[in-house]
Amino acid sequence: MKLLRHGPKGQEKPALLHSDGTVRDLSPLLADIGPAQLSPAGLAALASVDPATLAVVPQGRLAVPWAGLGKFIAIGLNYADHAAEAGMAAPAEPVVFTKAASCAVGCEHPVVLPQGSVKSDWEVELGVVIGSRARCVSEADALRHVAGYCTINDLSEREYQLERGGSWDKGKGCDTFGPIGPWLVTADEVGDPQNLAMWLDVNGVRKQTGNTRTMIFTVAQIVSYLSRFMTLEPGDVITTGTPPGVGMGRKPAPEFLRAGDVITLGIEKLGDQRQTVFAWDPALIDA
Amino acid sequence: MKLLRHGPKGQEKPALLHSDGTVRDLSPLLADIGPAQLSPAGLAALASVDPATLAVVPQGRLAVPWAGLGKFIAIGLNYADHAAEAGMAAPAEPVVFTKAASCAVGCEHPVVLPQGSVKSDWEVELGVVIGSRARCVSEADALRHVAGYCTINDLSEREYQLERGGSWDKGKGCDTFGPIGPWLVTADEVGDPQNLAMWLDVNGVRKQTGNTRTMIFTVAQIVSYLSRFMTLEPGDVITTGTPPGVGMGRKPAPEFLRAGDVITLGIEKLGDQRQTVFAWDPALIDA
Repeated sequence: MKLLRHGPKGQEKPALLHSDGTVRDLSPLLADIGPAQLSPAGLAALASVDPATLAVVPQGRLAVPWAGLGKFIAIGLNYADHAAEAGMAAPAEPVVFTKAASCAVGCEHPVVLPQGSVKSDWEVELGVVIGSRARCVSEADALRHVAGYCTINDLSEREYQLERGGSWDKGKGCDTFGPIGPWLVTADEVGDPQNLAMWLDVNGVRKQTGNTRTMIFTVAQIVSYLSRFMTLEPGDVITTGTPPGVGMGRKPAPEFLRAGDVITLGIEKLGDQRQTVFAWDPALIDA
Repeated sequence: MKLLRHGPKGQEKPALLHSDGTVRDLSPLLADIGPAQLSPAGLAALASVDPATLAVVPQGRLAVPWAGLGKFIAIGLNYADHAAEAGMAAPAEPVVFTKAASCAVGCEHPVVLPQGSVKSDWEVELGVVIGSRARCVSEADALRHVAGYCTINDLSEREYQLERGGSWDKGKGCDTFGPIGPWLVTADEVGDPQNLAMWLDVNGVRKQTGNTRTMIFTVAQIVSYLSRFMTLEPGDVITTGTPPGVGMGRKPAPEFLRAGDVITLGIEKLGDQRQTVFAWDPALIDA
């Protein structure tokens, strides 16, 4: 299933994308798509619904595909060739940092540059959405705790991330720096998460090309690993690192986002995103 | 006001601690203490209630004093003498990292050592609870966005934090590693947050003694600073760093927590905590 939430801010309704390409209204069946609906029982109940019986509705503004996003955990340097372009050694174990949950937005939401930002950058990443509590789970069991997957743009302010001291978190959680979606695609429909092509363009020029098969740590390894340091709860999301081609690593000189740029990106089976970049404007953040 | 939530897990009720020392039931007036109640309007409404008119109830198990804790942001090395004991230079700007929101527990909740942990440590800290949205606020305006303050034990697994690569977040968000409370004390009752004595004992032996007046960055500076990197929302909490005396820095050798240890800690005006340390046991995490 491809689950989504759409409509005006604060009035989002749950829906699913049918195989015929139409958006089908789930709001008569459930108030929202949240942690309870992401559980194995919740997804089984949704899967028992025949989409053809649901009303076709026009697609509204796309929001984060589920409500109740809890932790927004991120893995750094998880593609060997991206680590190389960043000038960093491939890590011996997963690099973990955190994106502020408040940075999560829908996949077409404006990307608003922070005040004074001159080094904002793009990162196409596979998002992993937790559907059932995972605490000290084995790699063999890890994927059972995954409700589904989504495309994420892990936008990053490199000055804040790397030149302001402390952890990377300062440059990762700026408002609008976490576009998610268009859909949450359930794990059964995705199959193997380690064979998904991914790409990202800026202004129509290809910047990133990759495939999840070149991850250093697989989704199963990441879920298992993280679950030893913190309990993963339904509604948590993990963004799993980016392939080569980020602006910071470009030759002969780094490239960063500027107002007016258009970012398009996508992951095989998970759908595409499109964002326009704007200069600082709080009204756009809250759009 | 001293606001609290108490009762069995999942059935917590809102209450306040009256000046006569009794717990007064707020549940007839509001379903819970959450972000809406922490807003200036919500706190004003609560302040208009005469506690003497509220029923006296026996104090139950203490939970996190407010529901809807969003981001759990932490400041590192924010006391000059603690930075020195950690062998690190005083930072030029605040060091920011993140505790997993899932680590937050009540002030008397068992502290459960992670599987295999040998370097778990204590940190008494001033917690700052956000009451209204703060985005790019000035230092002069910052404290208007603070609903109140609380005692926090920023428990830390030093091996995970410092020896496992990446950010500090791995060692900061373990389950039960964020005791908060007993109360949320509203800002009007606390007054100046930069003159609060603080202490922590392990098994009755004093380990930490400090005062918020020796912070490198004040609460107002921290709120203003963070609000430029991410929007702070009602229900978010910032833990603001610890004074000297953590286990990692003790002479002649580091000291770490072991099963059976009892940690007691407190901050002037904000109340005291008491935790017993247990070996890994998932049932205790969920108690």
